[in-house]
Amino acid sequence: MSRWFEDIEVGQVSETDSYTMTKQEIIEFATEFDPQPFHMDEEAAKQSVFRGLCASGWHTAGILMRLQVLSRGGDDGGSMGSPGFDDLRWLKPVRPGDTLWVRSTCVEKTPSRSRPDRGSAVFLAEVINQKDEVVMDARLIGIIRKREAGTA
Amino acid sequence: MSRWFEDIEVGQVSETDSYTMTKQEIIEFATEFDPQPFHMDEEAAKQSVFRGLCASGWHTAGILMRLQVLSRGGDDGGSMGSPGFDDLRWLKPVRPGDTLWVRSTCVEKTPSRSRPDRGSAVFLAEVINQKDEVVMDARLIGIIRKREAGTA
Repeated sequence: MSRWFEDIEVGQVSETDSYTMTKQEIIEFATEFDPQPFHMDEEAAKQSVFRGLCASGWHTAGILMRLQVLSRGGDDGGSMGSPGFDDLRWLKPVRPGDTLWVRSTCVEKTPSRSRPDRGSAVFLAEVINQKDEVVMDARLIGIIRKREAGTA
Repeated sequence: MSRWFEDIEVGQVSETDSYTMTKQEIIEFATEFDPQPFHMDEEAAKQSVFRGLCASGWHTAGILMRLQVLSRGGDDGGSMGSPGFDDLRWLKPVRPGDTLWVRSTCVEKTPSRSRPDRGSAVFLAEVINQKDEVVMDARLIGIIRKREAGTA
């Protein structure tokens, strides 16, 4: 399902499906990308500042991306990538068995001055757990194609 | 190898080892975390804004983290996690076969007012490819234990 620049309004809220993090996935991701003891070893994690095993923040960021992409069916003709993110914060540890979903609110929308076929938008993306706690948030910038350009 | 708060100086630069991204890894990561055609399918990627297969930006961020953690041997008693990062930008596509490394420059260091055992520091982390191009940068915030607290 494609979302075009014209479809986006400031204040618009979208919600994704949810995803449950398993202990095995947490350990596997950390082993590859963030091999710190508190993300890989339950005993070491108990002695750490996190007081128990928790997911790498980059793993949580990956799940955010997965949920957002899949919420548009993985094939969004409007998506022209992202220049980046601002103000990403990991607010609560993500534990094995936590179920996460994403609420995304458009906070800014700007047509490109130099390229008439596209614009940029900023979304406040919040990752929320089963206790309704925001575990991570960030301001994601997206470059989005206009419908007339994408379907021409 | 542990790095304590006292070891950090503003202006200090550290460099990691390098890591070469394979096509298979790029496709596998994207399939799990960022299933957009330009990260998974070579033919679709040629038609996209990226004009060829490129890694998910979150994959590049994961490699940044991996290289930084491994540069301290994966077991850093000074690391107390990170509240997040600011101003993350993906500047150039990362292609199969690209070899990446990280240059990290401390730009700010602040002792905690409320917790005498720790402080925070901000690092400008740059991911650099084999052509000496910065493909991604971000300002990473770290919470770092003081030596007296960590070795007591």
